[in-house]
Amino acid sequence: MQFNDFDKAGAFGRLKALAGSYRKFDFNAALNPERVKKYSVPLAAGLVYNYAAKAVDDKVLAELKTLAEQQEAIVKYKALLDGEVINTGEKRKVLHQLLRGQLGKAVVHEGKDIGEFYRNELERFSAFADKVRAGELRPSAAKAYTAVAQIGIGGSDLGPRAMALALENWAAAAGKKRLRAEFISNVDPDDASKVASALPLDETLFVLVSKSGTTQETLANELFIKDKLRKAGLDPAKHMVAVTSETSPLAHNQSYLDSFYIDDFIGGRYSSTSGVGGVILSLAFGSEVFKEFLQGAHEADKAALESDPLKNAALLDALIGVWERNFLEYPYTAVLPYSQGLSRFPAHLQQLDMESNGKRVNRDGAAVSYSTGPVVFGEPGTNGQHSFYQLLHQGTDIVPLQFVGFLESQKGDDVEVDGSSSQTKLKGNLAAQITAFAKGKQDSNGNKEFLGGRPSSLIYGKALTPATLGALLAHFENKIMFQGFIWNLNSFDQEGVQLGKVLAKKILSKTGGSTGDPVLDAYGSLLGV
Amino acid sequence: MQFNDFDKAGAFGRLKALAGSYRKFDFNAALNPERVKKYSVPLAAGLVYNYAAKAVDDKVLAELKTLAEQQEAIVKYKALLDGEVINTGEKRKVLHQLLRGQLGKAVVHEGKDIGEFYRNELERFSAFADKVRAGELRPSAAKAYTAVAQIGIGGSDLGPRAMALALENWAAAAGKKRLRAEFISNVDPDDASKVASALPLDETLFVLVSKSGTTQETLANELFIKDKLRKAGLDPAKHMVAVTSETSPLAHNQSYLDSFYIDDFIGGRYSSTSGVGGVILSLAFGSEVFKEFLQGAHEADKAALESDPLKNAALLDALIGVWERNFLEYPYTAVLPYSQGLSRFPAHLQQLDMESNGKRVNRDGAAVSYSTGPVVFGEPGTNGQHSFYQLLHQGTDIVPLQFVGFLESQKGDDVEVDGSSSQTKLKGNLAAQITAFAKGKQDSNGNKEFLGGRPSSLIYGKALTPATLGALLAHFENKIMFQGFIWNLNSFDQEGVQLGKVLAKKILSKTGGSTGDPVLDAYGSLLGV
Repeated sequence: MQFNDFDKAGAFGRLKALAGSYRKFDFNAALNPERVKKYSVPLAAGLVYNYAAKAVDDKVLAELKTLAEQQEAIVKYKALLDGEVINTGEKRKVLHQLLRGQLGKAVVHEGKDIGEFYRNELERFSAFADKVRAGELRPSAAKAYTAVAQIGIGGSDLGPRAMALALENWAAAAGKKRLRAEFISNVDPDDASKVASALPLDETLFVLVSKSGTTQETLANELFIKDKLRKAGLDPAKHMVAVTSETSPLAHNQSYLDSFYIDDFIGGRYSSTSGVGGVILSLAFGSEVFKEFLQGAHEADKAALESDPLKNAALLDALIGVWERNFLEYPYTAVLPYSQGLSRFPAHLQQLDMESNGKRVNRDGAAVSYSTGPVVFGEPGTNGQHSFYQLLHQGTDIVPLQFVGFLESQKGDDVEVDGSSSQTKLKGNLAAQITAFAKGKQDSNGNKEFLGGRPSSLIYGKALTPATLGALLAHFENKIMFQGFIWNLNSFDQEGVQLGKVLAKKILSKTGGSTGDPVLDAYGSLLGV
Repeated sequence: MQFNDFDKAGAFGRLKALAGSYRKFDFNAALNPERVKKYSVPLAAGLVYNYAAKAVDDKVLAELKTLAEQQEAIVKYKALLDGEVINTGEKRKVLHQLLRGQLGKAVVHEGKDIGEFYRNELERFSAFADKVRAGELRPSAAKAYTAVAQIGIGGSDLGPRAMALALENWAAAAGKKRLRAEFISNVDPDDASKVASALPLDETLFVLVSKSGTTQETLANELFIKDKLRKAGLDPAKHMVAVTSETSPLAHNQSYLDSFYIDDFIGGRYSSTSGVGGVILSLAFGSEVFKEFLQGAHEADKAALESDPLKNAALLDALIGVWERNFLEYPYTAVLPYSQGLSRFPAHLQQLDMESNGKRVNRDGAAVSYSTGPVVFGEPGTNGQHSFYQLLHQGTDIVPLQFVGFLESQKGDDVEVDGSSSQTKLKGNLAAQITAFAKGKQDSNGNKEFLGGRPSSLIYGKALTPATLGALLAHFENKIMFQGFIWNLNSFDQEGVQLGKVLAKKILSKTGGSTGDPVLDAYGSLLGV
């Protein structure tokens, strides 16, 4: 296994030489029903990745395949699954796929079978959630838990929150008992105060999540909530469980009702399929629902082992992203789910992608001389159509797009207006947008002209369910992992968050009115710190 | 008044020539407490715009001032206030500032005093809201309205929703009676179904908002809700008011409890200070709260009349944005409010900015040969610090930043942990981030090195109140207007949303299984349309 910078790969130069003409790819000439059919690959759990409206052809795809081989994308994925120390910066294995199932060798670390550890924890919190949902575990004889609220930030917030939103309507339609799920993340006290005042505290179970057990925001919010519980005459130990690592100061602490563990091989932003997402999702919707979600993710992990990118949706999506970032030179990408359930999925992907691959040094710490992770943003459609799509259609720059859509709504609660249901309108708009972005429209009035040539892909499936949600999540995790391999990055650390933490600690613990850094002091003084 | 393309201005070439060295602006040399103090300008309502950490100096600022003069930014703003037809594409006046107060001549259109019309509508919906809040106007003798839900999309959704979120904690702390405020926007039926099933329909007043009265999504959601009301045995006419234009099919319709009017001179994304935002905000928090919000906006509008950019926060912010977009060549900008109340403010700004200035033709319809509006994205801090800030600190590209922060939280409900309150931690982090982005940190380990040179501005004030929120909103509206003037764009139409609408209509009304466009048909077929 070799780790070489991306621009040393033979395919790099050939792709550079090719790129020029593809910046003005003529979709009016290239795009037809045959291409829509051909440029398509199954993803997992019934989802399909279609890239007919991307600025590629068989020549480009062949070079991208060579690039994947030269950068050993699949070899490295297999090594990761087998427990190699892929996170070199922190000297850690990377094992979030193992949470979903075993695809490589058994991973043993310091004598411990990690897969077994993950399975045990899954069963522990599943049993715990089952008891709470059955009313066997209660805050008091008179009350049951009717609400769960996660206290966590970053990876302990964005993913679980996006997943909870995505499953809420599905669970309602499936007749699942639902516990209300809320989230507290920001250190802004207005966040915790608003959530706490809207919750029935005597029926709420808080899920405190911090892998290190030292996250400033989360510890502040823990104390904020414990204070509220005490003031309401409640025992915090009956209203809080912890999800943390076994080495954290929060671990094995009797002041929590129970504790569930992860380890250093699960990065925060990759932890939605661990107890970080699992405890609250199992409590809110049922442990069997969370397990279906894991199963969907596992299917996508398995599909990502295929060595031919034309049969591997995650790898192909990664390669096309690299083509757009480094050769067509687009610095951003928009994720546009046509599903209200995925309203916060783009915010989670923004974290997943930008925190993983927003790096200017390679895995050995040497500066790279090519662009890495793009800026990622998005909002659900059709909402975005009435907002920032103006720039996407008629701005001076091209923004690559990634659409997601489903044949059916989650609840099936719909209305027929002007001859079509709302779900059909939603899908009709999605088909219309892909076509409009690609083909454009000529007009003698410049203001009404659309140049087209705006590339997009489409991930679609029957419905947004626990399984398809899991597959969708794992698809993007794996896409980002493959891009990291291609760019020769360590996608699994986040040193870029450290400096701000150090300076914040400095200003919060300053003595005699000064931190010793006059600029920090000057800004602190503006803000009254 | 002359409308010339931006690259014809004399200052353009000089700024181009200057730009090179500022891409690596040395904040370690330039940034000190004196500069933090000096590079600061009052905005309005007590807010201050600080640009000490932007890559500018007096030489650049002098050229930017010349640019503003050459592009006649203030002259055009005054013309807009006086009622000139600034929206050339649609041949319309642009009068959202007039909603907040009179700053130019009286604007008379077809014999009607528009300012008087706006003031009358404000008083009409204020009186209506007062009656609802006092329980004088009720859905039935037994019930009062306890919830309001807006049905609207784009400009009828993002702004009002962001404002409602921003005022909720403030209103709670101020002891204002609050009506629960919800929003339905997406044509995805899962959106309306979820909101409707969570609301007490017999106590809910729906606010139907569509200027044209023809918005596909909004009309579908109107019928969805009317259907639910009827099925619950309720009379829709007692549960719905309309906000629309007087020429729309919704106007003067007895099937609404009441109707409030705007006109074509209020663009959707600029309509938060009209009845589009005003009806729901007055119902939810009180008409006096909405009027304070308008007053804050009016103050910012007034401050934006100042001809010296160094004394005009909106104009200066606009000019620095242009400097970053066209001369330093950054294609995006991030908006990062350190206030949970502003959690959806970036989504509104994304619309405001990208829909206004995401255009490749000038106001006469001719293609421009320079970049226009950037991609805008953002999430509240400190949340973002644990997410996409990795790329902002250590990515291969520089993303200009715009921070917002307040000295006090909205509710004052706080906790002291490790010697500081959560609000102090929030502010300490903000000061730390600005410093870290600007100054960076040297390290022999490349992975732990921060190059710095990441420019940011800071808007700050005492607290997020109706008045400061209004000022903040108007600041950005005016900033974007000024950028449109500088780029010689029409910032007030949105032709880019039309093609998708046309194609969606085509596919939804296809006969015999075909639209005549094989590509549209092929995507429709994938999605089962």
